[in-house]
Amino acid sequence: MGTVRLDIAYHGAGFSGWATQPGRRTVQGELEGALERLLGERPRLAVAGRTDTGVHAWGQVASFEAEGAPETLTRSLNGMTGEDLTVLAAGPAPDGFDARRDARSRTYCYRVQCSAVPSPFERGLSLWWPHRVEREALDRCAAAIVGTHDFRAFTPGVSEHTRFHREVLRAEWRGGDSPPFGQMLEFWIEADAFMRNMVRVLVGTMLDVAAGRRGVEGFELLLDGAPREAAGETARAHGLYLASVRYEGS
Amino acid sequence: MGTVRLDIAYHGAGFSGWATQPGRRTVQGELEGALERLLGERPRLAVAGRTDTGVHAWGQVASFEAEGAPETLTRSLNGMTGEDLTVLAAGPAPDGFDARRDARSRTYCYRVQCSAVPSPFERGLSLWWPHRVEREALDRCAAAIVGTHDFRAFTPGVSEHTRFHREVLRAEWRGGDSPPFGQMLEFWIEADAFMRNMVRVLVGTMLDVAAGRRGVEGFELLLDGAPREAAGETARAHGLYLASVRYEGS
Repeated sequence: MGTVRLDIAYHGAGFSGWATQPGRRTVQGELEGALERLLGERPRLAVAGRTDTGVHAWGQVASFEAEGAPETLTRSLNGMTGEDLTVLAAGPAPDGFDARRDARSRTYCYRVQCSAVPSPFERGLSLWWPHRVEREALDRCAAAIVGTHDFRAFTPGVSEHTRFHREVLRAEWRGGDSPPFGQMLEFWIEADAFMRNMVRVLVGTMLDVAAGRRGVEGFELLLDGAPREAAGETARAHGLYLASVRYEGS
Repeated sequence: MGTVRLDIAYHGAGFSGWATQPGRRTVQGELEGALERLLGERPRLAVAGRTDTGVHAWGQVASFEAEGAPETLTRSLNGMTGEDLTVLAAGPAPDGFDARRDARSRTYCYRVQCSAVPSPFERGLSLWWPHRVEREALDRCAAAIVGTHDFRAFTPGVSEHTRFHREVLRAEWRGGDSPPFGQMLEFWIEADAFMRNMVRVLVGTMLDVAAGRRGVEGFELLLDGAPREAAGETARAHGLYLASVRYEGS
């Protein structure tokens, strides 16, 4: 038996998220199906970040155990998956490596195109935001997010989780002018783990602040275990990217 | 009568190029149709760059004469055109302004994604090039292009043109690492005018040089009126963008 690590990128529009669902096209289903045809048996993939429907990934990581995987695995998989799913690397990992359990942190990026008119090149790739953006307010919100907080206001999945504290290692807004389409702003956040929709509700709520519909102080109060209804809307899935996953020694 | 200037961006995939053709969706056809519904008569658009099928634009410029255009023209047009066509600005121009005749130079950008595997986010937006790239050779080719040359080797449309000299004001390769997908290289070129397919044949021929299939010296010899068959292939349309147009005083 050997452990195999997959590094994967995908455009989320064509997938009902990561996790296998009967009758739906999912990233896990597509990969496990291709591996079954290649290896003769269907592996069970562990994954660093279970992305939802429509969410993209630049650097998803998965792992599985196999009797032996061919050296040409990367090329073979890319020949069997759709053009919206790319295997960046597929190869041997240390014995027992588990992409989910061993992940030290996940980094997500949420892209917001702030302009009066939408870019024809950003359809499905970023949130179009034609409203006011107070950049300084966004920066203050991001700074408040860093650290350990009770994020239950930022997930609809309260029943799915047993603890609501997460440690945010990094949170910042980046980006700037992107002519001729106003500004492209990116919210980058790294944490030990995320709850369902957490990044999207954080972004939706921060955009309220950016537009002047909510104060920074009010935003800060949400980080101490406020109820879901106190926070803002869930920003659309197509602006969100699982950017990278960090493991011990990387 | 007043002169109106349109600044336009479009994703080329859904258009059979700029120029009106019976039974085909074209950028000119879509815009003139929308203007006809808004203004009550169909204007005849002049355009800075007649882009071919599949070619994109960040900063196309068109102009027309009208009895009077509403102040809300930008918004109205964007409500009537497809999501792949955005009017950045529509408003009054100096009397007699002609987007084609008055253009001092056009700038194009050709995007090449150099990586072993293709990005799912670049489908239709750049050329995927999984081959060798000698960046220094590319830079030497670009430097050779600057200046006035006989570019007849770089167009299939010899019968369309009566003169083959063009003045290239700027030509350079930019870009670099674009993790996790290798490198994103962009060829930027500004010239007084371009012949059909000129940028795409220049790029196709330079990529031969980058891959070691053709020498820089051989490339330089093509710039002195060599026949079309001496140059390389026409790089695919979907990597090409009309980036901007320069006019007197801008």
